[in-house]
Order: sequence, then structure tokens, then C-alpha cells
Amino acid sequence: MPIFDPSPRSKVRRLAERASYDSSVIYPIIDAALVCHVAFVADGQPFSIPTLHARMGDSLLLHGSAGSRLIRHLQAGNEVCVSFALVDGLVLAKSVFHHSVNYRSAVVFGRGRKIEGQEEVLQVLQAFTEKILPGRWDEVRPPNPQELRITGVAALEILSASAKDRSGPPGDDPEDAELPVWNGVIPLRPGAGALKSDSPLPVSPSVAAFLKRLQE
Amino acid sequence: MPIFDPSPRSKVRRLAERASYDSSVIYPIIDAALVCHVAFVADGQPFSIPTLHARMGDSLLLHGSAGSRLIRHLQAGNEVCVSFALVDGLVLAKSVFHHSVNYRSAVVFGRGRKIEGQEEVLQVLQAFTEKILPGRWDEVRPPNPQELRITGVAALEILSASAKDRSGPPGDDPEDAELPVWNGVIPLRPGAGALKSDSPLPVSPSVAAFLKRLQE
Repeated sequence: MPIFDPSPRSKVRRLAERASYDSSVIYPIIDAALVCHVAFVADGQPFSIPTLHARMGDSLLLHGSAGSRLIRHLQAGNEVCVSFALVDGLVLAKSVFHHSVNYRSAVVFGRGRKIEGQEEVLQVLQAFTEKILPGRWDEVRPPNPQELRITGVAALEILSASAKDRSGPPGDDPEDAELPVWNGVIPLRPGAGALKSDSPLPVSPSVAAFLKRLQE
Repeated sequence: MPIFDPSPRSKVRRLAERASYDSSVIYPIIDAALVCHVAFVADGQPFSIPTLHARMGDSLLLHGSAGSRLIRHLQAGNEVCVSFALVDGLVLAKSVFHHSVNYRSAVVFGRGRKIEGQEEVLQVLQAFTEKILPGRWDEVRPPNPQELRITGVAALEILSASAKDRSGPPGDDPEDAELPVWNGVIPLRPGAGALKSDSPLPVSPSVAAFLKRLQE
């Protein structure tokens, strides 16, 4: 797995001790994030679009309607910057200033390219499905030619990337120690509500496994 | 509350029936999101930075180290685009193609400006604290002059904005109805793990109220 060079673009400037350029740190953050936010430039203006993603090796995968502006921008080979953020907890201090969040975030830079060819496109769509629900791909009907025709897929070769995180308790000032207010961390994690379904069938193994992981 | 004009920049092109330009739809999404992703252009390149935010009226508030590149970029009056995404559920269909997520997302465009003056800065910092933990501001030590000096605050006047969402069950094709696989929605919502604290004190009212809301 690559360790990226902290380029002028990707170099973390603030709280640099919280930064990493190691893909073994960065990729798990990308994989754990359900959505990413893609920044691109069009007519000199910044745009940010939230979307789903998957990853295969050093490529970030994005998909959408074949006609979507973002997908066409990527397929045309333009540079984008994609960010990911996971909030792991609220950090509650004895002072306003030291309030914070525990988080893991990643920022990647790269250039898009079009994914073409039925086999490659299917591989990418499978990566999307399997990222969230391993096993689901084999349980359901695969894409038909018409569905493939209207789906646009792009890959981003990750050229440079960085991660940043915070964990642990609040960093209260020693002189605040005696203030009579609770300090600590509220850990946050995704939870599932009651399933909504009209299906008379039991949930499939991929769904059961997903629900089990959420409760771990 | 304003209804924004769907400008060429903010106009939602894909699945336009899922789009809204009404601030009464957009602002609750902004307020519910813990983090946003700010896209900006520097040297012609796109950058995307995840960060915390708050909102006061038609202004989006951002803060950070007084020397941070993002904050200085905003304070200098540059245009940015900020996106927000809440994933409400996984939509599991009988075909790969109709798998989706239920979500609420927003994209706003605007120009930054520097927030100056101790009173204004304090008001903004209070908005950040109160957004997540109403009441916390009055429980803890307020910022001192040194803390205020190293905190940079910027506001973004929201000039145009849009929201998009999906809700409801999977949109399976009628011809897939008999496929023997469970379909439905797994609702996702943030949950809290066990509190981490060395404090001998009980949690403060703001924290107790936050934990109660998470369980509703």
C-alpha cells in the first residue's frame, strides 16, 4: 500500500501532528465512509457534490446517471478533490474553547477517468454493492443491458491523499480542572432503526450480517 | 425564510423532482448535519475540506485556527460551495440497479466574510456550541481573550442553495416482484455509545438532554 508524498496540495498545515499520508491509515477511512463529497472546478467556480463511493486498490470509484454533470466531468479526465469525514464522538470540555469532536477524515486528490466495457463496469458496480452489503450482489438480479447503458461510472486514480484524526478525552487546561462541570466524550456511532419492508420473506444473509455488525 | 432562485450554478439537473430551493427545506438539513464539506478553488485547483459549521439566519458560520488556509480564504471574501449529506437509510431492492440510499442533502453557494469584534465572534462561537448542545454555553468557562485571538471565524452569506432527498421504499420493477429476495429499508440514525469520562460529576443538563434526544 502506498505512502503518499505530502505534496503542496495535500500537506496538512493545521495540527500537523494529527496528519498521515499512509494509505493504510487513509483507505480504512474511505472504506468506512458511506458518502464522500467531491469538489470540482467549473467555469472557475467551486462545486461540491455529495455522492456514494467505493474503492478498488488505489482507485476511488464514483457512479451516477450517465448524463450527470459530475460523472461527465470525471470521465473527461478533470482533477477533483474528494473528502470523507467520520464523526466518532463529541468531546465535551470544561471550557468552550476545548470543545471538539473525535473524528477521522481523509482528503484525496486525483484525476478522473471513464470506466468502460461491460465487464469493468460490472466489477465497479459490484464493488459498490459489496462495500456496504457483502454478499448482496449474489442475492439480487444483476444489472441488465439497459440499466448498464444509463449508468455512468468513473474512477479517480488517487495521486495524493492525507488523513487527519482526533481521538481521546478533552484537552482541558489544568487551571479548569476544578470547575464543577462534567467533561468527557459521547461516542457516536451509526445505529439502525426498525426495518421497513412489505416483504413476507426473511432478511437475506447479507442484510442479517449487516445488522449484526451494527450491533457489535 | 427565502426561497432561492435556481441559478445556473445551483440548479439540480438529475432527478430534478427530488430538488428544492426553499430555505425551509434546506436549513433543517444544514442544522441537522454535524459536519459540512467546503469546496474552494486555489491556484485553479479544487479543494474540499470537512469541517464543523453552524447557521445564523441566512449565514453559514465556519471557524478554525485563525491561521488556517480555509478560514483565511473565506475571510478574504472568496466564493465557496458547501455541501451537507445525511444518510437516513439503506434502500435494498430486488435488483442491483434499484439499490439506493435514503438521504437528505444540501448544497449552498456563497462568499465568505470575516467576523470581527469580540461580541460578534462570541455570538458565533455560542451558535456552534448551542447547535449541538443547547445550554452547554452557560455551563462551561467562556473563551478568554487569548483563546479568542487564535480562533478564526468566517461567515458565508448564502446566495443560492438547493436541497435534494430520497425517502421511501425501494423502487423495484414490477417484473422483479416475484424474485425470492427480501427488499426494504434499513433506517440509519446516529446512536451513542457508553460515555467516556473520568469526571466524578453527573452529566450536565445539556448533555443529559442530548442523550435523551438521541434515544427518541
